[in-house]
Amino acid sequence: MSEPTYLERLGARTAAAGTVLCLGIDPDPEALPSGFSRDVDGVERFARLLVEVAAPHAAAVKFNLAFFEAYGSAGIGALERVRAAVPAGIPVIADAKRGDIGTTVARQAVALFDALGADAVTVSPYLGEAAIAPLLERIDRFAYVLSRTSNPGAAELQDLPIDGEPLWAHVARLAAGWGPGGTVGLVVGATAPQELIRAREIAPGLAFLVPGVGAQGGDVETVLASGSATATPAGGRPGGGLLVNVSRGIAGAAAGEETSGSGDLERRLAEAAQRWAATLPVLP
Amino acid sequence: MSEPTYLERLGARTAAAGTVLCLGIDPDPEALPSGFSRDVDGVERFARLLVEVAAPHAAAVKFNLAFFEAYGSAGIGALERVRAAVPAGIPVIADAKRGDIGTTVARQAVALFDALGADAVTVSPYLGEAAIAPLLERIDRFAYVLSRTSNPGAAELQDLPIDGEPLWAHVARLAAGWGPGGTVGLVVGATAPQELIRAREIAPGLAFLVPGVGAQGGDVETVLASGSATATPAGGRPGGGLLVNVSRGIAGAAAGEETSGSGDLERRLAEAAQRWAATLPVLP
Repeated sequence: MSEPTYLERLGARTAAAGTVLCLGIDPDPEALPSGFSRDVDGVERFARLLVEVAAPHAAAVKFNLAFFEAYGSAGIGALERVRAAVPAGIPVIADAKRGDIGTTVARQAVALFDALGADAVTVSPYLGEAAIAPLLERIDRFAYVLSRTSNPGAAELQDLPIDGEPLWAHVARLAAGWGPGGTVGLVVGATAPQELIRAREIAPGLAFLVPGVGAQGGDVETVLASGSATATPAGGRPGGGLLVNVSRGIAGAAAGEETSGSGDLERRLAEAAQRWAATLPVLP
Repeated sequence: MSEPTYLERLGARTAAAGTVLCLGIDPDPEALPSGFSRDVDGVERFARLLVEVAAPHAAAVKFNLAFFEAYGSAGIGALERVRAAVPAGIPVIADAKRGDIGTTVARQAVALFDALGADAVTVSPYLGEAAIAPLLERIDRFAYVLSRTSNPGAAELQDLPIDGEPLWAHVARLAAGWGPGGTVGLVVGATAPQELIRAREIAPGLAFLVPGVGAQGGDVETVLASGSATATPAGGRPGGGLLVNVSRGIAGAAAGEETSGSGDLERRLAEAAQRWAATLPVLP
């Protein structure tokens, strides 16, 4: 028997968790709760705490690599240990926005899939399909192609018109034909709800990873209504392949009022994750 | 006195070296010469050898991060040691093609400029200027924006027409207005000589980092004729801000005939670097 595909593993975990919540882990040292040192040790401790108390409520975990890369080799060592602490069965996404030419991207695949053990990655489309091919071709792994991102300046390039269609839509259309089938999804931000609806029309079968909910103020209603795939390969699975990322919306619960002990901190993080999981249910 | 800018440091080094050669360090374990183990130790040893014997003939050194990231934290540790071995005065470029939203790209700047100590980086334009702002705003550092890359599939996205102009040209035009001035250049591949000529017309003042010469078969004549900036901020300096990257064209000299000892290997790498330096002179 072959290894289950990423979409199979994600579907099983989504059904078990009952949510399309993706726990984003972006530990900014300046935003750590009191009691955590503003260095690589504090970042590792807080990331590990999130994995322990919040990940059990989520369908997947997304690590934002830059927050670990900022500490060089020590930071990557911390990331490796935290990743190893993610319970089996919860898919791990490496948010790295990679893509490069020839042998370079082949080494990126080794870095992310083998050295780090990520189940899925985020990739940039600017260099074309060939520049991400090694990240698309493993049938048990997955790549989310940046289409319409959630940042305020996303439109500068992504909305440029090509034959009457914005660049991001063109990317969505192209990406639907990339890879061997079932290994490609899209990043579409919740901060641009009309674009998300249109991306779903363009690519009805692709799994969406949706950032921008929570601290960035994205539109949860639209994401739940239009984020799930309606055709194969992602359609028909629990959640329709949808993942909605929440990072600061959960980690931020650690700040706020003074804690009365570490048990209190754990409780608040777990409750924030539970709230977001309930806000982002698997629709029938 | 303030720290000299990257363009000032690059100009001084280009004048001293008498070449626009950029030594690319992309150590593929499968392509290491005999006597080097196909693991992180072999990669570190070979990268360090290149720095010792080839970098003295080059205007700059470019590390391709994926070849180190493939070994996780151990690989980044190796990269940190090799980077520290680059002689002072030779600018170091981190080829990482970064860019991301908000706080993430701020952490990428810390990772590349502070933790690794890179003088310059490569960045992807897909998320817009704001997503690379922290990589553009330090007046003593520098970012090369991907415009027209050297890979065979580059045209898939980069040649898409926007108001009669390809996307890559639009990016070149946009990038010329990015940053505080003097901190932005372009990546333009030597494999697309007509595009390089056009990019120089669009952005006469930007420094070009040109991959694709050597193993990829790019056009040296055109690069030398059109690669140097003709206007400020890069124009008027030695080399006009041009850097032409050669990786396998130098590292590949380590393969081939059997070596008769490590002295022979060092000699062949140094000679290959010298040949490329002479092939890529600073034009008056």
